[in-house]
Amino acid sequence: MNISKIEHIGIAVKNMEKSIKLFETLLGSKCYAIEDVPGQKVRTAFFKVGQTKIELLESTSSNSSIAKFIEKKGEGVHHIAFKVDNIKEALNKAEAEKLKPVDEEPRKGAEGMNIAFLHPKYTNGVLIELCEDNLNKQN
Amino acid sequence: MNISKIEHIGIAVKNMEKSIKLFETLLGSKCYAIEDVPGQKVRTAFFKVGQTKIELLESTSSNSSIAKFIEKKGEGVHHIAFKVDNIKEALNKAEAEKLKPVDEEPRKGAEGMNIAFLHPKYTNGVLIELCEDNLNKQN
Repeated sequence: MNISKIEHIGIAVKNMEKSIKLFETLLGSKCYAIEDVPGQKVRTAFFKVGQTKIELLESTSSNSSIAKFIEKKGEGVHHIAFKVDNIKEALNKAEAEKLKPVDEEPRKGAEGMNIAFLHPKYTNGVLIELCEDNLNKQN
Repeated sequence: MNISKIEHIGIAVKNMEKSIKLFETLLGSKCYAIEDVPGQKVRTAFFKVGQTKIELLESTSSNSSIAKFIEKKGEGVHHIAFKVDNIKEALNKAEAEKLKPVDEEPRKGAEGMNIAFLHPKYTNGVLIELCEDNLNKQN
């Protein structure tokens, strides 16, 4: 695939307010955006770290994938998101390489991105998100 | 703390040869370095992704922390490494903020870095590595 950078690292948290404070302390910078993504039943909070972002993820429903993740594994790194220029092309390449997409078609994620996940079973246990950023093609 | 970028993401793998091929396919770039770190009983393999790196970690001993991690949690993201300008200063700040260092003193990691870990219990389940890069202070 044609990966230009790590767009963000998604971290599952139980208590957004506490975790925002923790990451503000840790990173020495302020959370720059909080956004609900109802389609994924999560609240997100973003931090910039150089070229990349940290995305905190708090479940807004007990049957969300973040709630299930925390139940099974506890808080921690949930996914790594890679920036791609063209998400449909990237999904086709992933399928051709036997990296199984969770999403057959791209969907809308936080920050207006077009996103799709790859199944961690085929990627060393790492849940990988592919992100196409239509608003900021150059970043 | 004064974090300038994500230096790398460490991923625990069972079979380095297979995982290097997988990440070459996934990232569309070649592994640029393989290095043994005897002090941590691991073999590492590095990929560049924009400003950041992916570090694959394969255990070289059944009692290494990577072997224990895989036994408990399976393959997957093991740690996130943040670049700091001065690791001793960062460790002091971490302690002052009640983020418990695993290492009281910095030690040598891969690529000649001075490194220290913070205990995941105090950082949302995320094992965090602090890295000071003496050779490339500007990157």
